[in-house]
Amino acid sequence: MSLIDAISKLKIETPLFEPGHVWLAGAGPGSLDNLTLGVVKAMSEADALVYDALVNPDILQAAPQAELHFVGKRAGKPSISQTAINEIIIRLAHEGKRVLRLKGGDPNVFGRGAEEAACLIEAGIPFRFLPGITSAFGALANVAIPATMRGVNKAIILATGHGADDSLDLDWAALAKTGQPIVIYMGMRRMGMIISQLLQGGLAPQTPSAIIMSGTLNEERVLIADLANLETRAKEAGFASPSLIVIGEIVAHQLVQTKENRREGLSA
Amino acid sequence: MSLIDAISKLKIETPLFEPGHVWLAGAGPGSLDNLTLGVVKAMSEADALVYDALVNPDILQAAPQAELHFVGKRAGKPSISQTAINEIIIRLAHEGKRVLRLKGGDPNVFGRGAEEAACLIEAGIPFRFLPGITSAFGALANVAIPATMRGVNKAIILATGHGADDSLDLDWAALAKTGQPIVIYMGMRRMGMIISQLLQGGLAPQTPSAIIMSGTLNEERVLIADLANLETRAKEAGFASPSLIVIGEIVAHQLVQTKENRREGLSA
Repeated sequence: MSLIDAISKLKIETPLFEPGHVWLAGAGPGSLDNLTLGVVKAMSEADALVYDALVNPDILQAAPQAELHFVGKRAGKPSISQTAINEIIIRLAHEGKRVLRLKGGDPNVFGRGAEEAACLIEAGIPFRFLPGITSAFGALANVAIPATMRGVNKAIILATGHGADDSLDLDWAALAKTGQPIVIYMGMRRMGMIISQLLQGGLAPQTPSAIIMSGTLNEERVLIADLANLETRAKEAGFASPSLIVIGEIVAHQLVQTKENRREGLSA
Repeated sequence: MSLIDAISKLKIETPLFEPGHVWLAGAGPGSLDNLTLGVVKAMSEADALVYDALVNPDILQAAPQAELHFVGKRAGKPSISQTAINEIIIRLAHEGKRVLRLKGGDPNVFGRGAEEAACLIEAGIPFRFLPGITSAFGALANVAIPATMRGVNKAIILATGHGADDSLDLDWAALAKTGQPIVIYMGMRRMGMIISQLLQGGLAPQTPSAIIMSGTLNEERVLIADLANLETRAKEAGFASPSLIVIGEIVAHQLVQTKENRREGLSA
């Protein structure tokens, strides 16, 4: 049976996408097969699509009827401010359009979805969240590193390494003291500081760690190393954003098909 | 444009689902629109489907060609052991079938996916993970509670409240000391103990908290209360499994359309 046949057999009930409403949707971490049916359906119905650079551009094929508003970062140009993005979304909604705000990953997980929703509430514009596969779990699945495994961990921490753009910063030492694995989004720029604080918090220098660059895409790369060596190894190997940093025993349990592979992966 | 038209415009590249292989897939947290294209495609190609009780049974319509093996819990009957489930999956793969192991949520996030994959490696059977929207993020999106929000949190902890089936248990006090929100899967049975340890770890009794029962389904229910009152209120209101417990300041930032709604929601 084909994918189309299978989908036509499913009774998919979603709320009506009404004119003047905004839906904040997640496209998942890159690979098109991680798109949800709900998001594709919303794309097919949207009058306007407001999207970021992180979204796989091939996704746009699903919304040929929509006017496109790119609001992501372009190399070498200043990025559009969050205020300007909010204004675009609100203007389109006020024009009576069905506005789909599409981001990579999940808009509600380190995606500023909550901030945009708060602006929509201020403006009296109805909205809805459509979740996407968040990058951490998409990438871990693709490289077969367990997010959780019995006897290894009973929790997992997702954190952002993004800089001190507000007064609040994470207590990395407290995260370390939980003994649970940590997946860090947007952590490449401050990796040295973060690792240093995790080590001070009690993580062993030998803690198995990984960097997953361009997770789930064809150009995906994985580096596995001890925590103490991770930054040096990443620089040597040219790892850069967008990357996830994964720290904890789960990395040593990567589910690879042969013991030879596993040893090789952990040789760092 | 229809959903079908939109999907037929997408170039979806997935690995070939080969006979004798097992794919460990996540159906997301219930609502059919949370299914990913990759999982529906795999369903349309599978020879055998091994599925749990948590999966929305309407999903099975997408795999009419597959033989069905239900391995979830049935009310009043002893549940099938993990060993027996592993044996079924391995037998089907050895029979040369394309085996889709389908679970609610994400198999790699509190879903025993890693344990099943480890057994497949032992048996020499090739496998792959297909992520699903994990229950926490599906449910938070549906009730518009931010998973992350600037100025509120820079990390989120997903934890299981499942009992001491192995020697390892979580250091709930250490989780509390991170100051970050915690979403607890399968925590209803041990809620009293968990809340008590979180309070001992330093969480304020007034910490905004929520229980989301049957997240994303039509029968979804949400309870919002202070941490110290959560268990009592949940019992009074008849909240039971499957439920997620959400603890932290993010709950107070639920993105509701009117201030009246918000006050009502937080009146507990």
